[in-house]
Amino acid sequence: MAVQTVAVSTDSSAEAVDLGPAAALSCRECGERFELGPIFACASCFGPLEVAYDLPSGSPEELKKRIEGGPDNIWRYAPLLPVPADVADKPNINPGFTKLVKADNLARELGVTGGLYVKDDSGNPTHSFKDRVVAIAVEAARAFGFTTLSCSSTGNLAGAVGAAAARAGFRSCVFIPHDLEQGKVVMAAVYGGELVGIEGNYDDVNRFCSELIGDPLGEGWGFVNVNLRPYYGEGSKTLAYEICEQLGWQLPDQIVIPIASGSQLTKIDKGLQELIKLGLVEDKPYKIFGAQAEGCSPVSTAFKAGHDIVRPQKPNTIAKSLAIGNPADGPYVLDIARRTGGAVEDVDDEQVVDAIKLLARTEGIFAETAGGVTVGVTKKLIEAGLLDPALTTVVLNTGDGLKTLDAVAATSQATATIRPSLDAFRAAGLAAG
Amino acid sequence: MAVQTVAVSTDSSAEAVDLGPAAALSCRECGERFELGPIFACASCFGPLEVAYDLPSGSPEELKKRIEGGPDNIWRYAPLLPVPADVADKPNINPGFTKLVKADNLARELGVTGGLYVKDDSGNPTHSFKDRVVAIAVEAARAFGFTTLSCSSTGNLAGAVGAAAARAGFRSCVFIPHDLEQGKVVMAAVYGGELVGIEGNYDDVNRFCSELIGDPLGEGWGFVNVNLRPYYGEGSKTLAYEICEQLGWQLPDQIVIPIASGSQLTKIDKGLQELIKLGLVEDKPYKIFGAQAEGCSPVSTAFKAGHDIVRPQKPNTIAKSLAIGNPADGPYVLDIARRTGGAVEDVDDEQVVDAIKLLARTEGIFAETAGGVTVGVTKKLIEAGLLDPALTTVVLNTGDGLKTLDAVAATSQATATIRPSLDAFRAAGLAAG
Repeated sequence: MAVQTVAVSTDSSAEAVDLGPAAALSCRECGERFELGPIFACASCFGPLEVAYDLPSGSPEELKKRIEGGPDNIWRYAPLLPVPADVADKPNINPGFTKLVKADNLARELGVTGGLYVKDDSGNPTHSFKDRVVAIAVEAARAFGFTTLSCSSTGNLAGAVGAAAARAGFRSCVFIPHDLEQGKVVMAAVYGGELVGIEGNYDDVNRFCSELIGDPLGEGWGFVNVNLRPYYGEGSKTLAYEICEQLGWQLPDQIVIPIASGSQLTKIDKGLQELIKLGLVEDKPYKIFGAQAEGCSPVSTAFKAGHDIVRPQKPNTIAKSLAIGNPADGPYVLDIARRTGGAVEDVDDEQVVDAIKLLARTEGIFAETAGGVTVGVTKKLIEAGLLDPALTTVVLNTGDGLKTLDAVAATSQATATIRPSLDAFRAAGLAAG
Repeated sequence: MAVQTVAVSTDSSAEAVDLGPAAALSCRECGERFELGPIFACASCFGPLEVAYDLPSGSPEELKKRIEGGPDNIWRYAPLLPVPADVADKPNINPGFTKLVKADNLARELGVTGGLYVKDDSGNPTHSFKDRVVAIAVEAARAFGFTTLSCSSTGNLAGAVGAAAARAGFRSCVFIPHDLEQGKVVMAAVYGGELVGIEGNYDDVNRFCSELIGDPLGEGWGFVNVNLRPYYGEGSKTLAYEICEQLGWQLPDQIVIPIASGSQLTKIDKGLQELIKLGLVEDKPYKIFGAQAEGCSPVSTAFKAGHDIVRPQKPNTIAKSLAIGNPADGPYVLDIARRTGGAVEDVDDEQVVDAIKLLARTEGIFAETAGGVTVGVTKKLIEAGLLDPALTTVVLNTGDGLKTLDAVAATSQATATIRPSLDAFRAAGLAAG
């Protein structure tokens, strides 16, 4: 199966798989290249595979114009993604092009003078950034002839897969720990796919899914975060593209990104590098900062200790969407943070809650716990002098507060409860305008 | 205070209030005109006031170009709204330009051949159409020098006001019944404004707010749905503008709109009429359909009985965001449905739940109960031969399923719960691709 050159993507066996500019899969460790297919690990060194491209030629101005004339979703960047050119005409949930909010009120509170922006991915169809990665996986599943879309999940991903499969015409079968919170079960089940509770924890679910992929029972199944992972991961590049386009085709000076597996952070870096290479943005330095919750901080712990390897942790934090104790892309995150002059930091659960409420109170954005992590880490990095408040800074909010209401419930209650009378209202002391 | 002509908007007293093309308030009953101000009822006949405009002159092509070059939110229509020309530069939550989803899967299920679209307002910042109306009220509050934004609410509106006030720099004070569901309390409180529980039901809350407006205690307070209501209501016009622009500057043949107070439906009709008058769309017939829940169906009951007046009902339905038993704009809704050749229909709670799940399963859109009402009514109208499946049809989803999880919880559960083994999976019979 292993091949050495990009040429494989134009030979007869590969012609059936049209994923646009995607030319091959290449191993991030040893560089070996493979034909496009539902594989995720290098046959030689077991390193992770990622998509290699034949990026568009032509002038940056032509490409910008083409992008700006495209749809108001991630498909405007189809020339830079592993999707066919006519992707926008196929049924998909069409995520992306979410708001980049200029957060002047938050900037004042944090003392940022160089321009502070929140990239708010709660505006996606199922209200998390997972819609971006799943939308790309859907097109790969289509190209490879899969009929069932699947994943293991504890929350956001289950909803994103259920919704995308429903619209794109796939059967879906999502695996979750059997004792998940009721709200998450409902969100995963409402799209009408199969939802299977596994008697065990998330690790057991993952182990089961790996078994299933290798078994004839799993034939025709695309697991978005396993055998479609190389394609899936590319969806995060669109965050980089959108941020730069929305800044007027400029790189931000600093970006703060949450870390779960670390994939999102590495793909945003990849996206920024592509924009530089294509001449769509000026080549200038930028710093990438990673954000974790203290209760699951294997990468920030390694960063602060100066280690190159990431020691697994047992997660214990309210930021459940970031609670991956053994992050696959951890070492790459360390590389990127160090190469760009950034850092990786963590905040405790109380700081997460405070940051969710800070963002809500200043900008009217209700973030999920992952957004509390990035805002909280931004504050901490400024106080520590690691993030320069005089530079343009983008903070990611990757999800929606409606999905993690419990985090703020105890401290978000009515100010007062009164009888319906003006006297009672006067006595409550709330009249002052 | 009463004045007879549009000229008042250019005299010295009105110069301080710059609400763009808004020229005056006019009574919908007797036509008397009043200066722009925080008033909502005609001084002569107590009829409701609405905004009268000096709409832009110039060619339709110029106006289209100006709109299409505007921001990706409701402010692209600033020349048609009661907001200053520089509104996009002011802090606001910038709702709108939500997706118009071509719902081919749903169309197949319902037998619609003429093109079926879902206007999905769950993509707004706080995930309901209320962001549109509140955003306009914020600009009116700014123009009138109010410092506190307020409302009475049982859900979506509280969140929209809290978020918008936070970002726009207003104090907010929202009044709710004291025994509201915990989730809704949290959503209303997280933005950090005052949240006052009133010991009583929603009627008691409303009565208290009316008292407060008339009292010195309420000085400087803008109640978005009371003394700012004429401006607030105009926000719903943007749904009409967006639908037509997203259809390529075409009127849809049929629109299905939920009815709570009926304001949204009447303003969408107003918006469509404006587009025709301005030459932005071809003047052709369109039909407007109203949708209610059977447990709160005063307007559909009147429509079906051939009455001109709407008899109040005591609401009892899971579609709580539509549960207004005495809808202020009910008679206007009857007029519009009859004038355009549409209808008003209702569905029971079981049909609401079925319709929520139908939309989720076919299009990956998880609607709140109000969206279940419109989809359910669309199905019923087609079956009754009142809605023509061969014509272009737009169905509104005005909110998000995450806010009304209870409606579908009982019937959205795991398909199976199994041990983490291939044998158990095989036995569950879910492998068939």
